[in-house]
Amino acid sequence: MRIGVDYYPEHWPKERWLTDARLMKEAGFNVVRMGEFAWVFMEPEEGRYDFSLFDEALEILARHDIAAILGTPTGSMPAWVARKYPDCAAMKPDRQRRNWGIRKTNCFSSGTYRLLSERITRAMAEHFKNTPNVIGWQTDNEFDGNPCYCDSCRANFQDWCRAKYGTLDALNRAWGTHFWGHRYGAWNEITLPEEQHSYNPGLWLDWKRFNSWLQVQFQRDQVRILREVCPHHFVTHNTMSFHPSINYRDLCADLDFASWDNYPVFGPPQILYNAACAADLVRGFKQKNFWVMEQTAGPGGWGAFGRNPWPGEIRLIAYQQLAHGCDGMLWFNWRACTAGREQYWHGLLGHDGLPLRRYREAAQTAHEFRKLWPEVEGTTVRAPVAILYDYDSIFAQESQPSFENNTYIQDHLRRYYDALFRAGVNVDIVAPTADLSRYAVVIAPQLYVLPDATAHHLAEYVRKGGVLVADIRLGVKTETSLCHDRTLPGLLSDTLGIVIEEYESLTGIWGAKPSEYRVVGRRDISGTFTAFGFADWITPRGADVLAGYSDRWHMEPFAAATRHRSGNGWGYYVGTILREPEFYDQLIGDVLAKANVTGILRPPVGVEVSVREGAGKKLLFILNETEQEQTIAVPSGKRELLSGQLTESKLTLPRFGVAVVKLA
Amino acid sequence: MRIGVDYYPEHWPKERWLTDARLMKEAGFNVVRMGEFAWVFMEPEEGRYDFSLFDEALEILARHDIAAILGTPTGSMPAWVARKYPDCAAMKPDRQRRNWGIRKTNCFSSGTYRLLSERITRAMAEHFKNTPNVIGWQTDNEFDGNPCYCDSCRANFQDWCRAKYGTLDALNRAWGTHFWGHRYGAWNEITLPEEQHSYNPGLWLDWKRFNSWLQVQFQRDQVRILREVCPHHFVTHNTMSFHPSINYRDLCADLDFASWDNYPVFGPPQILYNAACAADLVRGFKQKNFWVMEQTAGPGGWGAFGRNPWPGEIRLIAYQQLAHGCDGMLWFNWRACTAGREQYWHGLLGHDGLPLRRYREAAQTAHEFRKLWPEVEGTTVRAPVAILYDYDSIFAQESQPSFENNTYIQDHLRRYYDALFRAGVNVDIVAPTADLSRYAVVIAPQLYVLPDATAHHLAEYVRKGGVLVADIRLGVKTETSLCHDRTLPGLLSDTLGIVIEEYESLTGIWGAKPSEYRVVGRRDISGTFTAFGFADWITPRGADVLAGYSDRWHMEPFAAATRHRSGNGWGYYVGTILREPEFYDQLIGDVLAKANVTGILRPPVGVEVSVREGAGKKLLFILNETEQEQTIAVPSGKRELLSGQLTESKLTLPRFGVAVVKLA
Amino acid sequence: MRIGVDYYPEHWPKERWLTDARLMKEAGFNVVRMGEFAWVFMEPEEGRYDFSLFDEALEILARHDIAAILGTPTGSMPAWVARKYPDCAAMKPDRQRRNWGIRKTNCFSSGTYRLLSERITRAMAEHFKNTPNVIGWQTDNEFDGNPCYCDSCRANFQDWCRAKYGTLDALNRAWGTHFWGHRYGAWNEITLPEEQHSYNPGLWLDWKRFNSWLQVQFQRDQVRILREVCPHHFVTHNTMSFHPSINYRDLCADLDFASWDNYPVFGPPQILYNAACAADLVRGFKQKNFWVMEQTAGPGGWGAFGRNPWPGEIRLIAYQQLAHGCDGMLWFNWRACTAGREQYWHGLLGHDGLPLRRYREAAQTAHEFRKLWPEVEGTTVRAPVAILYDYDSIFAQESQPSFENNTYIQDHLRRYYDALFRAGVNVDIVAPTADLSRYAVVIAPQLYVLPDATAHHLAEYVRKGGVLVADIRLGVKTETSLCHDRTLPGLLSDTLGIVIEEYESLTGIWGAKPSEYRVVGRRDISGTFTAFGFADWITPRGADVLAGYSDRWHMEPFAAATRHRSGNGWGYYVGTILREPEFYDQLIGDVLAKANVTGILRPPVGVEVSVREGAGKKLLFILNETEQEQTIAVPSGKRELLSGQLTESKLTLPRFGVAVVKLA
Repeated sequence: MRIGVDYYPEHWPKERWLTDARLMKEAGFNVVRMGEFAWVFMEPEEGRYDFSLFDEALEILARHDIAAILGTPTGSMPAWVARKYPDCAAMKPDRQRRNWGIRKTNCFSSGTYRLLSERITRAMAEHFKNTPNVIGWQTDNEFDGNPCYCDSCRANFQDWCRAKYGTLDALNRAWGTHFWGHRYGAWNEITLPEEQHSYNPGLWLDWKRFNSWLQVQFQRDQVRILREVCPHHFVTHNTMSFHPSINYRDLCADLDFASWDNYPVFGPPQILYNAACAADLVRGFKQKNFWVMEQTAGPGGWGAFGRNPWPGEIRLIAYQQLAHGCDGMLWFNWRACTAGREQYWHGLLGHDGLPLRRYREAAQTAHEFRKLWPEVEGTTVRAPVAILYDYDSIFAQESQPSFENNTYIQDHLRRYYDALFRAGVNVDIVAPTADLSRYAVVIAPQLYVLPDATAHHLAEYVRKGGVLVADIRLGVKTETSLCHDRTLPGLLSDTLGIVIEEYESLTGIWGAKPSEYRVVGRRDISGTFTAFGFADWITPRGADVLAGYSDRWHMEPFAAATRHRSGNGWGYYVGTILREPEFYDQLIGDVLAKANVTGILRPPVGVEVSVREGAGKKLLFILNETEQEQTIAVPSGKRELLSGQLTESKLTLPRFGVAVVKLA
Repeated sequence: MRIGVDYYPEHWPKERWLTDARLMKEAGFNVVRMGEFAWVFMEPEEGRYDFSLFDEALEILARHDIAAILGTPTGSMPAWVARKYPDCAAMKPDRQRRNWGIRKTNCFSSGTYRLLSERITRAMAEHFKNTPNVIGWQTDNEFDGNPCYCDSCRANFQDWCRAKYGTLDALNRAWGTHFWGHRYGAWNEITLPEEQHSYNPGLWLDWKRFNSWLQVQFQRDQVRILREVCPHHFVTHNTMSFHPSINYRDLCADLDFASWDNYPVFGPPQILYNAACAADLVRGFKQKNFWVMEQTAGPGGWGAFGRNPWPGEIRLIAYQQLAHGCDGMLWFNWRACTAGREQYWHGLLGHDGLPLRRYREAAQTAHEFRKLWPEVEGTTVRAPVAILYDYDSIFAQESQPSFENNTYIQDHLRRYYDALFRAGVNVDIVAPTADLSRYAVVIAPQLYVLPDATAHHLAEYVRKGGVLVADIRLGVKTETSLCHDRTLPGLLSDTLGIVIEEYESLTGIWGAKPSEYRVVGRRDISGTFTAFGFADWITPRGADVLAGYSDRWHMEPFAAATRHRSGNGWGYYVGTILREPEFYDQLIGDVLAKANVTGILRPPVGVEVSVREGAGKKLLFILNETEQEQTIAVPSGKRELLSGQLTESKLTLPRFGVAVVKLA
Repeated sequence: MRIGVDYYPEHWPKERWLTDARLMKEAGFNVVRMGEFAWVFMEPEEGRYDFSLFDEALEILARHDIAAILGTPTGSMPAWVARKYPDCAAMKPDRQRRNWGIRKTNCFSSGTYRLLSERITRAMAEHFKNTPNVIGWQTDNEFDGNPCYCDSCRANFQDWCRAKYGTLDALNRAWGTHFWGHRYGAWNEITLPEEQHSYNPGLWLDWKRFNSWLQVQFQRDQVRILREVCPHHFVTHNTMSFHPSINYRDLCADLDFASWDNYPVFGPPQILYNAACAADLVRGFKQKNFWVMEQTAGPGGWGAFGRNPWPGEIRLIAYQQLAHGCDGMLWFNWRACTAGREQYWHGLLGHDGLPLRRYREAAQTAHEFRKLWPEVEGTTVRAPVAILYDYDSIFAQESQPSFENNTYIQDHLRRYYDALFRAGVNVDIVAPTADLSRYAVVIAPQLYVLPDATAHHLAEYVRKGGVLVADIRLGVKTETSLCHDRTLPGLLSDTLGIVIEEYESLTGIWGAKPSEYRVVGRRDISGTFTAFGFADWITPRGADVLAGYSDRWHMEPFAAATRHRSGNGWGYYVGTILREPEFYDQLIGDVLAKANVTGILRPPVGVEVSVREGAGKKLLFILNETEQEQTIAVPSGKRELLSGQLTESKLTLPRFGVAVVKLA
């Protein structure tokens, strides 16, 4: 297994490099990433290349059996690019170019920048193609889909629209430009939406897609060169998992595997890291294992920073990723920079360069991982449940969230994810168009944009025996962000056995106070719950009412959650948001029962389980994410790989402790 | 009575129009508004007109006995206007033109835009002048007084100043430009204030007046054409009632009657709608009955939306407007758009186009209204009490609110309004310069800008027997926003029997915590209250002290509320803001007693009463705005028009129920 | 003693001037400041001067024995400057010039503006050099160090960098531009940081220094002229004390004495005014007595204003400044303006011009001060304790506060200051490079930027017997905002007897919830406290542990506060922030005991004491800042100068009462 650090030799005097390499080797590290911000060191003046600094560093690393991933350095343009080519800078809606002096200030439509990018990529590829310890590439750094408003982007977007729609009539129909009389009579009239809440929703959705596409194209130009010159190297990119402005599935389609940067937000310890959910998302980008290209090594932040990982936590965070399908891991970064904006993004070493506690913990982890690797290699997560995650819905809801504080990503999706997590069931996070036949359960939170083909796909999934859980805002929009003109939930009405003639936001607008309703379990769900945010006024058309409204006369006729037998499967619908996690636990319990899914074990609160399997192997990871010792009922007589002991019926883990049980 | 919907035939296929017209007719509707965002459909290219779409739609409507109000379409410019005439776009303070793609992006100084506006207005007027079912016009859409900072507006404002003041000396004196040495030596030095809290207050006030004037002029150009070409049509405009940036009285002076758009903010149900107060304001714009041009039909909002009207609420909201002087009403809108930014501004029909609950409720209301109309026609509200609402004071206070969170409009005015509402007394909301002789009571909340003539007008009103209630910030400013150099309350000191040598804000500035004082009733007011926001240090000069301060040694010498006999009338003054509505109930009780005003009846909490009278008729509207059944003591032996029954001494209304009692 | 008001004769008709002068004289006033916003009156057109208005006003004042300080009027440019010389206006980061119409809109790099400034300064100086009652000058008004982003400033900053660093290599090393590959290859590539949290920290720190330097230079040009033409006049400037964006020590180096504008924020009464601490800071600008050029006369604010001073409070605020070293005082202002943006910055007279309560209170104060002056003259504050206040640290932390809501200025410094205040001990606030040998105790809160020389300076101070109290973020940065590459606290590790290998913010970032730790006293501090904001993980290397962590297993090995014997002195270190003032009271108690410092007396809560001494005199000021009568144990048999009585062992002061006890 490749495990190591992000390393910046250009930050430190050459005299230090040997010490660094030696400490890395002692830590069990065998890979570094480097170069992704070093353009000016490799091309100090336009067209003059100098790779000697990296040649020397790579040579020292090679002597310590450390391989390297090289970053194309286009995430931060040199000062000379900014000075010589002002059109490389992105433009803000106020028509001002972004100021040079921070990273990622470039426009992706700029022909100049694309040419400069291709040239440095080719120069690097040619230079390093035969360097023995170079094994792969990272493109640029953390593509984010952020838009630029320059004339070049405007023309590019207008061309993109013409290529997509062919005729203005088609575009006018697709976007519904009859509203406000905003019909286009010329391609160059197409406007760029400056903010999300005022423009045509179809325009907005395509603008988001265009900006995502633009960065995918930019990467593709680099990938093409790398494939051509370095066919034996892998190519990946460090995504930001749930970052909502770029379609990472499209981006990763051109790559060998997905990677991501893992920075759990450090406030007080959180027993259920976002990072598990994010890892499942990233694994879904290509539906295969992934790397963590930047792994938390200490407190992080640009101006203010956060909490320090507690003793044991660096190891725990690393094991969590391994458990979810990580096959390569690099801590960011080796040593806290003494210069620049990320002085407070702390490394395994502090500013003082001493191998202290964080270093030692990472070293322990690296040695363990490499020892475990023969057991882990070739395995992955095979989840019985899929959650659908749809970029079109995310893009469209940014412009029309329907209710205030509608946080589809994480908050909303997490209500279901966390209940499955508590149930000890692994989850895949995939596109609605994915092959769903492998899943016993499919959950579709706020599947807002729903082309007819996808609706049929889901209906068919249920008909053949699948269990579908859908909820609010299902199928509101077409693929061009028009509202469907069918009574909700449209084509899935039969599958779910309901109609929704009216609905409402409960958050109020224009400063009005939010309201809540009381929900009570009626069948297979018991207890009283609090509905907030949004409420469908659901009329069952055959569905069982699992929960209804109990405190308001006008809501009494309507269902809050339903279940419907459709073909060989089941269609569930939740028409509001419940404040209490217990609601989701009961719901998911019922869903899993209907789908005949059981977790390996049901862990205590704060203990995470995940299974990797494949190639005849099956490993159960158990992570105690609490500050207390925990005892977990486990299959007995199995080998726990870290201790080498056989399990009894109960296994006790210290705080932040980890076990890896070999089930097969 | 005209009752109907806002309808956009250009949104729907022609095949649907007949269905729509039939459903409207069945609902009892007899009027639509249309066309106000359809410029591009009527003038698809510059100078080429095509009204066929509307001709066809009007013809179908005519066959169903439905009349039409046409909107001049200048509230949303076509894409070709933006493309060909960049100077039509308003400019932001950062010198960037507003981006095309949302509505109302035009500059009102632009000669180009004014010419385009006149041309399309004339073309429409000429085309539709003889269309039988066209009965009137709405100008543009929701004029808002928002400013533009382009060179044309700058020159226009400088000209406006020259026309107003004649000489720079006069302007320098009027604005007091000696402060900060900001004296003007040339007309073209006059600056445009970019934000409200830093510039010369006189400049600010005139800048607000100018922007209001500019839009009034813009409308006048359209009205002139419509009067000339269509002398038999009425002309109105859909104002936004309390919107503070345009003087709607000036705007309505050119119109046949005022209209407004009624969207009560939907959080949890609010028993006392802002909408009653807003209706009284709109009725005051021309001191005659008004229309509701857009009436709430469902949840509304652009990105997020609000609550759905509960069963009975659509009808209740409509009756409230009728009770306050509404003579025509159109729901916005017929059917929720499937395209564009207002997809979530829901209509009587949903996106699915089915005539469901909201449609049925509106239909019931329309049928009732049309049946009631013979009894209602010719009546209006004759209120014994006036609240003064002064645009100059609003404009000036925007720049100098005196204390943080000073919300003159609604919040502050509403303290008095709501007490009168609870007392069952109708209210007019009028200008300080209005004829006050018809009112027994005049309330002047924060009458901040007070020209001497207006002060004399109020003093005279009291002298002749009127009851005046004034409060904090009374008469601070001259008509050019200089501070009067008299001890407060200046010319009204004798009328009110007080002087105010010092005063203070209680809200703190620069993040300091706000403070409060305790107030205790002394005479004709009893109990303990909480003063916040602002405190005058009132020294009585003959006035009775109704309430004083009780918890702070330094405030003990001062009065909190006073009453003074002056001539044949009474002058009340409230020197702070009280948190408790009970204070205002007692105060208003005393005021009404002194003025010999009694309501028809005192309603239970949450029940609204309003009286329309005239032409020998007198109708008592009773609205139960609560979710519980309510019993109200009413005059007995009168005909309740909805049930047709004679009243007993008590009348019981179900939740959201309405009664219309014919008193004469 | 000079005591008086800020007076604007150009605001009032000439007929009023005599009344004003007579009222001033009756109040005991003998000085005014004038002219600082009157440029347009003195130079109504470019190059045409007219000082007649001020000549007349000065003559009337002279007849009433009132002297004058003249302000150079460059704080507010005339309209003709803005019109004729657009390049005089500062530019915002969006490339738009600041709009004329408020004050202080100029660019300080503009050659045009500097020439205009020199010309009006020279014209004034020449004109008034022999006016008998002109005694001194105030430069401009409230320099604030705010930046401009115009091309001239950019070139000026690049030149400043070249002058400072000589070579690009030196600059690249100093700023550490290897990070993100942002190495400069040409001087004109140097960028201007548009906001504080994204750019290179070294660039940021120098940009802040440059902007401070730029305004110091601007003032220097005026001072040079005033010194040359009016050698017998003093020159000062009205600083804003803790305003963080300009190095007021540098600014005051060119002046005869420092002045400041004192506006305690008026929310509810605050018993410990910020104003004491601010006065101690201003006294430290030149380590000599100072003036209050604008003293609170009433409620203040531009749009909203604050609380009115209560009876006795105007006098109390004035005595507090006298007690802290004020030698001249002018109330801002004489009379509330009836025009302009500061209508609500109330004066001793209100808009009505009547000599009411605030006037009478100021008059009483002035008469008392002038009577006291023979006893006060020649005395100053001689504090045994210094708090270090470092502009470099402030500038650098603005860009990297380390933790959210890190308010170094006031909040953090005030924890120590207030404990000393409560202990009745006077404090100096000085630069880290000041001569510290005069202080028994030196407190260094968040001394973030610590050049090696300063570290040695502090270590030497302790070695020789001083008591040093340092805390979090000590010595993180070099003078160019690189991180030191030593284990914290670096060169002071031996002095403090500790090392800090790790540390963390407790506030979280990216919306994570903040956390807290429990701290418990271990030695010479007792009780339980709450740590928040930040935590060093301190390992003692010889230091005593005064307090440690008690609620978290992982913090148990670490100290929260330490004390170490080093040479003849003591080094204290506090590794977190404690919510409870009692912690700081105990800490300061221990520190003062070790340093053998005792206050004259320990005052009751809310009573302030301060001592002025010198020239053989010693005066104890006692101020009751509470609303209750207070009894204070004082040295008996001393003369209390206001009453003329000899003290007993206890002295009773009414609310807001003041005593001045002559100790020698």
